[in-house]
Amino acid sequence: MINASAAGVIQAAQQNRLCIGKVLAGQNGILGALREELIDTSRESNAAIEGLKSTPGGAFGSCRYKLQSLSNSPLEYERLINVFRAHNIGYFLYNGGGDSADTCLKVSQISKKMGYPVRAIHIPKTIDNDLPFTDTCPGFGSVAKYVAISTREAAMDVASMCGTSTKVFILEVMGRHAGWIAGASALAAETVAEAPHIILFPEIIFNEIKFLKRVKQTVERYGYCVVVASEGVRSNKYNLLSEQGTSDAFGHAQLGGLAPILARMVEENLGYKYHWAVADYLQRAARHIASQTDVSQAIAVGRAGVELALQGFNAVMPTIERKSDKPYRWSTGIAPLKKVANRERKVPRKFISRDGYSLTPAGLAYFGPLIAGEAYPSYKKGMPIYTRLKKVLVPKYLPLWSQ
Amino acid sequence: MINASAAGVIQAAQQNRLCIGKVLAGQNGILGALREELIDTSRESNAAIEGLKSTPGGAFGSCRYKLQSLSNSPLEYERLINVFRAHNIGYFLYNGGGDSADTCLKVSQISKKMGYPVRAIHIPKTIDNDLPFTDTCPGFGSVAKYVAISTREAAMDVASMCGTSTKVFILEVMGRHAGWIAGASALAAETVAEAPHIILFPEIIFNEIKFLKRVKQTVERYGYCVVVASEGVRSNKYNLLSEQGTSDAFGHAQLGGLAPILARMVEENLGYKYHWAVADYLQRAARHIASQTDVSQAIAVGRAGVELALQGFNAVMPTIERKSDKPYRWSTGIAPLKKVANRERKVPRKFISRDGYSLTPAGLAYFGPLIAGEAYPSYKKGMPIYTRLKKVLVPKYLPLWSQ
Repeated sequence: MINASAAGVIQAAQQNRLCIGKVLAGQNGILGALREELIDTSRESNAAIEGLKSTPGGAFGSCRYKLQSLSNSPLEYERLINVFRAHNIGYFLYNGGGDSADTCLKVSQISKKMGYPVRAIHIPKTIDNDLPFTDTCPGFGSVAKYVAISTREAAMDVASMCGTSTKVFILEVMGRHAGWIAGASALAAETVAEAPHIILFPEIIFNEIKFLKRVKQTVERYGYCVVVASEGVRSNKYNLLSEQGTSDAFGHAQLGGLAPILARMVEENLGYKYHWAVADYLQRAARHIASQTDVSQAIAVGRAGVELALQGFNAVMPTIERKSDKPYRWSTGIAPLKKVANRERKVPRKFISRDGYSLTPAGLAYFGPLIAGEAYPSYKKGMPIYTRLKKVLVPKYLPLWSQ
Repeated sequence: MINASAAGVIQAAQQNRLCIGKVLAGQNGILGALREELIDTSRESNAAIEGLKSTPGGAFGSCRYKLQSLSNSPLEYERLINVFRAHNIGYFLYNGGGDSADTCLKVSQISKKMGYPVRAIHIPKTIDNDLPFTDTCPGFGSVAKYVAISTREAAMDVASMCGTSTKVFILEVMGRHAGWIAGASALAAETVAEAPHIILFPEIIFNEIKFLKRVKQTVERYGYCVVVASEGVRSNKYNLLSEQGTSDAFGHAQLGGLAPILARMVEENLGYKYHWAVADYLQRAARHIASQTDVSQAIAVGRAGVELALQGFNAVMPTIERKSDKPYRWSTGIAPLKKVANRERKVPRKFISRDGYSLTPAGLAYFGPLIAGEAYPSYKKGMPIYTRLKKVLVPKYLPLWSQ
């Protein structure tokens, strides 16, 4: 969805050509700004920009790079100002999750503390859905849809052969600190008999005895049991369950994630035949089954970011505000970036059932609308058509940047 | 696709009501026949039968159960005859892969060796695509499509952040004995620069040094490397790579599949940041992105099975015959079951590139048409509508079956 928001930004800017000249895209995020590697989006065709709305990954490149604080690393900020000045950059829109919000907040301080006039707006996007002050984060609805559908599909497979084969299926999904993605799998079930029978949230400390008891009960009642586990499930307040004593015969730490650990637990204690899957990037990049709601919201926050910048805002983030559940209605809002950055929003306890293994009606009401609609990409020869940009860089005026 | 073939069978039988009365479906395959648990498909609505064409899993249940030979277990066959006679069953259509073909072949011998007139037809269905005498097996085209799309999507995700984050992504797919599914991932690449950069086939003995060298070259050239590995990759003629010395600190065999082993290899020798995914049942049940070609062929072999039965054939399997690659044209054919059962068709060497890591043009020409077309299910509230049958059993006339 980061690309859909980029399309929203670029198209909104095109409609405000008098105020905004070119939209330059940092190649690989803030690194592109520091390195003066700036992609001239006006060199891309309108069709390519429109195509971004149905393209996974980050079309302009992405990075993991944390800006130091202004006092610790003034040279970095001076470099940014030099690049902004050289390319007459007055608006800085940055797209991502909590870390990106932090980067954007720091850039917003250039204006006040260093006197260069730039307006910094953060566009929310994270499959983790853990930014505060927004009802949801673009990217999440599509992962939620993928996980809910995959859970239902795999469960039907298991259900059809559980009499003589696999009885326990474990799907590990992303979410290191919050269980939003795991929680979304609850949308797969239409009755309590249906999968997922057990959801493991990072918000709920894992209890092996209780877990095994529930697995056993479920298999005895329904013939099979489907578990959806967040990678961030904790064995206690401080440790991930996936880290528990699992070095192998050579002393290597096991690289195996959580699913195989849960599988072993089931196998050793209950003896059930199991299978497990780790969706990893497949869930995050599954543009082929994106939520239309999610795509619409991603475009909307991109457009809203441009509008906020033009209205003179600095250090803010456009948000999604939910107006009602049924019918689902939403609009964009605004939140101060200072309150957004470096905070994580967990799944509220009232969304999680008392036993800790499923969603409450309030939780289901929250998740349901986010997966509505299928925003299919176009296909050619059986494969989705995903946009590849030309990524023409604007000329560099400055010396090379060295850290 | 097993459900789509069932719909083909039931609808073809409905059109031949004068010759065929009711279609009874064994609950959980041959076990349903032995246990006299027979689902009356005439109790399902036409809409439900039509809905089977877009429903994953095995709607009538499935089993892992191997019939003994007639000489070893005559009682089993007598029981089958008793059930067939009690319910006036003259045609036995059995749907599945190599093991099911073996079951069907054994049932076909009842007619000749035990004098009960039944015609046994095997309907091919296996995502493993390893049945001989048929160009492809229903079920495979959809898994191929899922794996090709997932590879492209995950690769775009990795490509966008490889500068500062994950450089190697490993996707483990099914295929214990043959590399058809892994091979299909090659359809993700439009140029040699694109993923998958390395495909690991069970047909090619794994060479660690050569593999690591290729990973390194790929990362140095393109910035990242995507590996698609068949679960059945072998370290030598006799052993799976996934079985290599991987018991953990407690002496447990590692349950972790192949992907984490390859990841560790990359990490320890090259130091690259990696991610891995194991698609497991997700790939097999992903009806949400089925191939239209596959659905059409699944229905066609179901219908062909009925036609062959009515024409008096016994111990045969309808096949898919390829008439041409471009344009892709196919029809159904027929193969003797005796030659089909208990044989595995591997990926031919001429389909695999000389270095063993990708497909040849001949291979691409084979795989390409199988993923064509998107046979989307219908959706409600963001979730696919998958058919749940009533599964009303016909009355039992016989005593309980005990093995």
